[in-house]
Amino acid sequence: MASSTSSVSHSNQPQLTKFKIALCQITVSLDKKRNIDRARLMIKDAAKMGAKLVVLPEMWNCPYANENFPIYAEDFDNRELSPSFMMLSEVARSEGVTVVGGSIPERCGDQLYLYNTCCVFRTDGNLIAKHRKIHLFDLTGEVCFKESDTITAGDGPTVVDTDVGRIGIGICHDLRFPELAMLYRDRVYASTDLIKFLNCSHWAVDNQLFVATCSPARDSSGSYMIWGHSTLVGPFGEVLATSGHEETTIIAEIDYSMCSLRRENLPLEKQKRGDIYQFIDCTNELNSQQ
Amino acid sequence: MASSTSSVSHSNQPQLTKFKIALCQITVSLDKKRNIDRARLMIKDAAKMGAKLVVLPEMWNCPYANENFPIYAEDFDNRELSPSFMMLSEVARSEGVTVVGGSIPERCGDQLYLYNTCCVFRTDGNLIAKHRKIHLFDLTGEVCFKESDTITAGDGPTVVDTDVGRIGIGICHDLRFPELAMLYRDRVYASTDLIKFLNCSHWAVDNQLFVATCSPARDSSGSYMIWGHSTLVGPFGEVLATSGHEETTIIAEIDYSMCSLRRENLPLEKQKRGDIYQFIDCTNELNSQQ
Repeated sequence: MASSTSSVSHSNQPQLTKFKIALCQITVSLDKKRNIDRARLMIKDAAKMGAKLVVLPEMWNCPYANENFPIYAEDFDNRELSPSFMMLSEVARSEGVTVVGGSIPERCGDQLYLYNTCCVFRTDGNLIAKHRKIHLFDLTGEVCFKESDTITAGDGPTVVDTDVGRIGIGICHDLRFPELAMLYRDRVYASTDLIKFLNCSHWAVDNQLFVATCSPARDSSGSYMIWGHSTLVGPFGEVLATSGHEETTIIAEIDYSMCSLRRENLPLEKQKRGDIYQFIDCTNELNSQQ
Repeated sequence: MASSTSSVSHSNQPQLTKFKIALCQITVSLDKKRNIDRARLMIKDAAKMGAKLVVLPEMWNCPYANENFPIYAEDFDNRELSPSFMMLSEVARSEGVTVVGGSIPERCGDQLYLYNTCCVFRTDGNLIAKHRKIHLFDLTGEVCFKESDTITAGDGPTVVDTDVGRIGIGICHDLRFPELAMLYRDRVYASTDLIKFLNCSHWAVDNQLFVATCSPARDSSGSYMIWGHSTLVGPFGEVLATSGHEETTIIAEIDYSMCSLRRENLPLEKQKRGDIYQFIDCTNELNSQQ
C-alpha cells in the first residue's frame, strides 16, 4: 500500500465510457470468514456477468453494531491479520475488476480508535484509495445509536481515478450532506463522473452524475435494521436498477455520455448564482493513494 | 407597497406553531379573468377549511409560455392594471390568511423586461415580500425552452416573517439548487422553519424543514406539460400530502415541533464538516418588504 497522497489530474480521461457496474447486496452474518467467502463469490460471479466495477456495502464483513467493530477490525499494515482486505485485493487482480470495497472497521496499530473505511482496488490488485467515513452516524431519540462511541471520523473526501473513470467515495451518512456531492461534482466535472455508494439518490439529479448505492441485505435478527434497496441512479435522476431486501447482485450499465448530454441540455453548473451563494472546498489535496 | 428592503430579526417567533396549509393546484386557462376568479374561489374555500397559509403555483394567472408572459404581465405599482395582485391582497385581508401568491409575470413601468414574481401577502392584505425567480429555466435538447427569452432573473433570495412563521420563497427551477435550500435553512434555523413552493422535495430531509410545493393542474392542451403533484413534505422526508394531475386543493397540517424534534435527534447542522467544505451566503440583506 502506497502511503503518499497525491493529486489527480483533471485531464485524465477514463479508458471506458460505457461499462457494467455490480452492486453486491450481501447478507452479513456473525461469521466473518463466511462473509469474506460470500463476498469473494459474489464479486467473481459479478465479473463473470461482465461487471468492470464491483461495489460492496458498508460494514460487509461485520454486523453493524458498536460492540462488533473492534472484534472484526483489521489493520491494513498487517496483511496477515487482514483477511477481508487481502481477499478484495486478490479478487480484484484475479478477475481484473475495479473493486470499491464497501467498508470494514479499520484499526491502526496499537491505537484504540477505529475508522469506518472503504478501500478501492485497481484491476492489478493494488490499493488506490482509502476513504474513512467523514460524517459519523450519531442519532438520539426513539432510535438511539452513536457510531462515534467506537469510530473516529476521517479527515477528508476521497476521489480516485480508476480504469472505469473517476469515482468519489462516501459511506452511508456521508450522503446526507449535499455539500459532499457538490465537492465531488466540482472535482469530477472536468473529466468523468461520480459514483457513490450507500444510501439515498438525489445527488444524481442535482449534480448530473451517476450515483450507485450499495446496502447489505436485510437481516431482521440484527440489532440494526438494514434497508437493502441498492440502487443505481442516472444523471436525469432516473432509477436504472434497484432491488428489494434480499441478498442479490444488481448488474447495470453506466454510460458516461448520458452525463455530458444532460449537462449540455440543462447546464446547472452555469445556472448557479455565484453572486448569491458560493460553495467552498476547504481541502486542497485529494485523499487518494496511487 | 413598501419599497424598502429590511432585515428580519432571527428572534422573531411565529404566533402559531401548528396550523393548516393549503396548496391550490389550479387549472390555468387562457382566460386571465377566469384564472383570477378561480384562484379567489379556491383561496376562499381553503380558508373555510381552516387553512391559515394558502399557496398558489407558478404562473397561475397565465399559461406557461414565453409568448404569454408579456400579455398577462402586471405592473404592481399601477394597481388598476394589476387585477391578479389586487385580488390576492383583497382575499388575504377578507379571509385573514397569509397568501404565498405563486407567481405571475411582473412588468416594471415602461421597461421591456419582465420578472417571474411571487408576492406574499399578510393577513391584513399588505404585501410583505416579493420574490423574483433567481434561476431561470433554460433547457436545450429534445425539449427546448428558454425562459430567459422574456424573463429577467431576480437578484436575491427571499425570506419573510408571516403570522405562520418564517418562510423562504423559491420558484420552480430555484429548487434545483440545493445551495438555496442551505441558505434558507441557515436563515430560518434560529426561529422557525422553511416553506418553499413548486417542485421537488429532498430539500426537506437534507435541511430538516417543511417543504411545500404547489403546481398548476395538468392541461394537456398547453405548450408546456404540467406535472401537478403538489406536495407537502415534512422534516423526516415524509410525504404528508400529495395529489394527482387534476385541479384540487391539498389541505395538510404543519407542526413546527416536528422540525425541532428531528434536529434534536439527528443534528445534521452540528454534524457538517466545516473543515472540509463551507457554504457562503453572499447576500447580506434579506429581500423582504415589510
